[in-house]
Amino acid sequence: MKHDYVDIDTLKFLVYNVHQIEDLLNKERFSEYDKIALDIFIDSVKTFSDTALYPFIKEMDEKPSYFEDGKIKVHPQFENILKGAGEMGLVGAGYDFEDGGMQLPATIFHAAYFIMEAANNHVPGYLGLTAGSANLILSFGSRELKDTYVPNMLDLTWGGTMCLTEPQAGSSLSDVATMATPTDQDFYQMKGQKIFISAGDHQFSSNFVHLVLARIKGAPAGTKGVSLFVVPKNRPAENGNFIYNDAVIAGEFEKMGQKGYCTTHIVFGDNDNCRGWLVGEANKGLSYMFQMMNEARIATGRMGTAIASAAYFSSLKYANERPQGRKLNSSGQKNIEEEQTLIINHPDIKRLLFIQKAIVEGSLSLLLQTSIYVDKEITSDTDEEKEKYHLLLELLTPISKTYPAEQGIQSTSNAIQILGGYGFCFDFMPQQYYRDIRIISLYEGTTGIQSLDLLGRKITMKNGKALELLVSEIQQTITAASTFDDLKPYATTLLENLGLAQQVISKLMPHAMNGNYERFLADATVFMDFFGTIVIGWQWLKTATVAKQTMMDDDGNQPEEFYNSKIHTMQFFYTYELIKTKGLAKTLINDEELTIKVSKDLF
Amino acid sequence: MKHDYVDIDTLKFLVYNVHQIEDLLNKERFSEYDKIALDIFIDSVKTFSDTALYPFIKEMDEKPSYFEDGKIKVHPQFENILKGAGEMGLVGAGYDFEDGGMQLPATIFHAAYFIMEAANNHVPGYLGLTAGSANLILSFGSRELKDTYVPNMLDLTWGGTMCLTEPQAGSSLSDVATMATPTDQDFYQMKGQKIFISAGDHQFSSNFVHLVLARIKGAPAGTKGVSLFVVPKNRPAENGNFIYNDAVIAGEFEKMGQKGYCTTHIVFGDNDNCRGWLVGEANKGLSYMFQMMNEARIATGRMGTAIASAAYFSSLKYANERPQGRKLNSSGQKNIEEEQTLIINHPDIKRLLFIQKAIVEGSLSLLLQTSIYVDKEITSDTDEEKEKYHLLLELLTPISKTYPAEQGIQSTSNAIQILGGYGFCFDFMPQQYYRDIRIISLYEGTTGIQSLDLLGRKITMKNGKALELLVSEIQQTITAASTFDDLKPYATTLLENLGLAQQVISKLMPHAMNGNYERFLADATVFMDFFGTIVIGWQWLKTATVAKQTMMDDDGNQPEEFYNSKIHTMQFFYTYELIKTKGLAKTLINDEELTIKVSKDLF
Repeated sequence: MKHDYVDIDTLKFLVYNVHQIEDLLNKERFSEYDKIALDIFIDSVKTFSDTALYPFIKEMDEKPSYFEDGKIKVHPQFENILKGAGEMGLVGAGYDFEDGGMQLPATIFHAAYFIMEAANNHVPGYLGLTAGSANLILSFGSRELKDTYVPNMLDLTWGGTMCLTEPQAGSSLSDVATMATPTDQDFYQMKGQKIFISAGDHQFSSNFVHLVLARIKGAPAGTKGVSLFVVPKNRPAENGNFIYNDAVIAGEFEKMGQKGYCTTHIVFGDNDNCRGWLVGEANKGLSYMFQMMNEARIATGRMGTAIASAAYFSSLKYANERPQGRKLNSSGQKNIEEEQTLIINHPDIKRLLFIQKAIVEGSLSLLLQTSIYVDKEITSDTDEEKEKYHLLLELLTPISKTYPAEQGIQSTSNAIQILGGYGFCFDFMPQQYYRDIRIISLYEGTTGIQSLDLLGRKITMKNGKALELLVSEIQQTITAASTFDDLKPYATTLLENLGLAQQVISKLMPHAMNGNYERFLADATVFMDFFGTIVIGWQWLKTATVAKQTMMDDDGNQPEEFYNSKIHTMQFFYTYELIKTKGLAKTLINDEELTIKVSKDLF
Repeated sequence: MKHDYVDIDTLKFLVYNVHQIEDLLNKERFSEYDKIALDIFIDSVKTFSDTALYPFIKEMDEKPSYFEDGKIKVHPQFENILKGAGEMGLVGAGYDFEDGGMQLPATIFHAAYFIMEAANNHVPGYLGLTAGSANLILSFGSRELKDTYVPNMLDLTWGGTMCLTEPQAGSSLSDVATMATPTDQDFYQMKGQKIFISAGDHQFSSNFVHLVLARIKGAPAGTKGVSLFVVPKNRPAENGNFIYNDAVIAGEFEKMGQKGYCTTHIVFGDNDNCRGWLVGEANKGLSYMFQMMNEARIATGRMGTAIASAAYFSSLKYANERPQGRKLNSSGQKNIEEEQTLIINHPDIKRLLFIQKAIVEGSLSLLLQTSIYVDKEITSDTDEEKEKYHLLLELLTPISKTYPAEQGIQSTSNAIQILGGYGFCFDFMPQQYYRDIRIISLYEGTTGIQSLDLLGRKITMKNGKALELLVSEIQQTITAASTFDDLKPYATTLLENLGLAQQVISKLMPHAMNGNYERFLADATVFMDFFGTIVIGWQWLKTATVAKQTMMDDDGNQPEEFYNSKIHTMQFFYTYELIKTKGLAKTLINDEELTIKVSKDLF
């Protein structure tokens, strides 16, 4: 088979042709790069993934990280991985040159992490969380915090984490209770517990830099009283030494998947000797954390897409190698004298594969679209342009997190189904990917939380301006597609779906305006499913249009089959997936209020 | 909470009120039973499940069955379980009195196994396969086979299995290659390998009776040359002794779920000393096996429903105990001074719970409906009546297997989602149920195979007579529901869906008539999803109608809330699930043929 876990040709086609990253290389920020340099970077990440990551994914599942004597032990291969990734500069790939980074476009950063995650989804979180937390310090921390912590994080000598969740609060950040007591020095005394802290400890980094949400003593209740702190595992002491900072690893959560990626429970200040340093201003912690959180949401969607990609290719390989059954003849019978056919020749197997292809490539395209908006925001020449891309990014972030999570689960389930009974067995990979991917709809805000964000905040923000901008982007795609006769029907379908979305939103908005927010948001998750499917429909039409244009212009470097496969998969998506939006719309505009004011004794 | 894993009140309401088992107690076959006797049986199974099964489900996952020194070792609790189940007569619960059985209605047999499977899905397969294989011997075997094997199977001193799958054939039974060579005595020499043999061996039964599909030397190719054999692990020898029959356990398949339920690889005749005894006539093995296979398909759907039931109640318990977040006020804000609310008060959590309730109870109702047809077939007074129920049973069997499998996976996934991050952790049960249930869509014919059976055989059988009979049954429900004003709109919706099904079938049939079977069956799985959803819509309307009638007549023994919950869940099912059928219908009548004659290089 062509691919083990990722299709680099499609990744590059999306990055260069569909999302046209090269247009951005004219910008000052990225002027050091040309396509050749980007290709070299992507290819080097692929080589690293082939050799250091992919060969170890099964073993990391079989020999999970574990908690022993107050420490977390991870798979020994992490020593090589962290060293290699540190040397390649993967943590700071997107940072400014002056911060020791490579100043690569976010789009290329995400492409690189996508490859690594498809190779081995248990690994890149260690890098990504270090990247995100160091970036928080760079964005909002003092000079001293930057100098003390960032350089060692950049080369992965130290790890970084984000500490939000507490046992009593879960998703409800209003209820964060970790306490920071001011002292007469530059630090606070920290006390509290954080759970579900990914990559919180291991034997191959000599220190961990926890970015912790906590409440300064006397701060207002709710999210308005939440501040952000750097709380290292080992803190700076005299003579450049570091001493233990009373940040105890209290245990590890044992999980059904991603077993190589540790999930820790950290207790800060059990011996009243845990120091934290405020990042930026007091009581603004949540807004700072949301820089990292938004990045982490995109990263989580990317990770889901990557796992689904790996599962897709493992099932495609099986379908291409496994003979079973025979085609039906015109009497509806099988000719048992014939050799068995490869299962990929059965339409139902093709259907299972096309759903996967449509979800994986559609999700990847959306993630790259979102990344392009990150790059366009940062390189905008005017405030207006900056705001435009910022709003588009805000609107697409919860969808970029959720569509790959929810549909990625379905996609990976299809991979199991293709293998039949073997799909359920440890001898084959789909069952592992299926267990691994199930966390994606829970990380960094569950699907329910993302959906409240989408409908409750993003759709309504700035009087619907973000939505207006998105509709305009989608309309550009519709216009471009409509110039091709064979794409026109799909362009029309997408336009109808935009109209449907408008109808649904017009039906829901009055509930918010009338102060009935519970009703407005009751089916936010259904809205996410509905709207997310339309957005992926947009990405597929865009992809198919560029594929068509590339073939017409005869300027692609792939065989015609490659471009035809994009158009075919778009058609498949429209016929088998986008068709669901009308039903979802009916659910959304239904007025029965079946989940509101219903006694819990009905269950 | 009211229930740990199963709602006995709902089970009894479905058995007695909705499906009216008592009508059948007038029949000669069941005349020994009255409602009190059935209740006592059901309650005793619940007590057995509470004490012997449910307390061990987590441990069976943590300490899986394993292969050692040519034998399978299962959890030590199986000793008590098999002894208890044997004493209770659970294997032969449905057999004739004269065969040593209890001659209970199939409906009650399935209700009992449903309870046991919800308590611990790793267990009842050992009983059920023994029941099914003994029943095959009773139905088609010689007097000698019956006398030799059945009594020890009835009390679980011996286990039984069904051996169909071979490594090179998978679902393709035409390619069964296990060979049976005639001898000049009453037995055949057996040689071949079978894989995925559930409950194939363990330390607590002294013998195993394998029902094996094999080909008698010189038999025709394909399924027409397949015969059925009894191949014991230990065979009868002189003086009433038993000696080893060269049936080697070659290994166990390690699986992501149902780890307490062993899945074995058996090699017959590696030392040319494996004897098999023909069951019934030569070359008719597949038709015999399909008696057991059809029972096993219903049992598999029942197991899926049971796992989904257990997952539902584990998430319902959590939702009723976990405080998190607050309700929104009329400004769309939360009052952070308030205590956190229980998560069950959030509409999105209610939605996740109602989907589960709708799938679990809808699936259970369908399985009981199917069982009632089994009982009606066996107690029919005329051939015409017998054929009617036989056809209904044939048509509903693949749906009863598949809807609970496919939707049960979604349902169980919702249970994880309700627990948030905890749902992914080993400390809570939903992750186990999620791993356990994933096999259900693969056992006893994958969803693809069931769907080919539904559309390719059952819908078309006897010129559509089975379908005609089903439509007539559904219409009776519609008529009954229409007498209640508040149910009428749903009755109308179901009627529309029947019309839609008719349209879809009329659109598809010409492909079969024109000999284009590949086109006819390409989207059989989509048809299964479509048609299965309508069938569950029927079961919900029936349930709601009976609930309504029971309240009107004031003759129920449950509080009004109980009956209202059925009506409410029906409404929920219609609004959130049945609404999907129109989209599926559009996919089905689409003419693009996107999965047919497509090069496999498009992937």
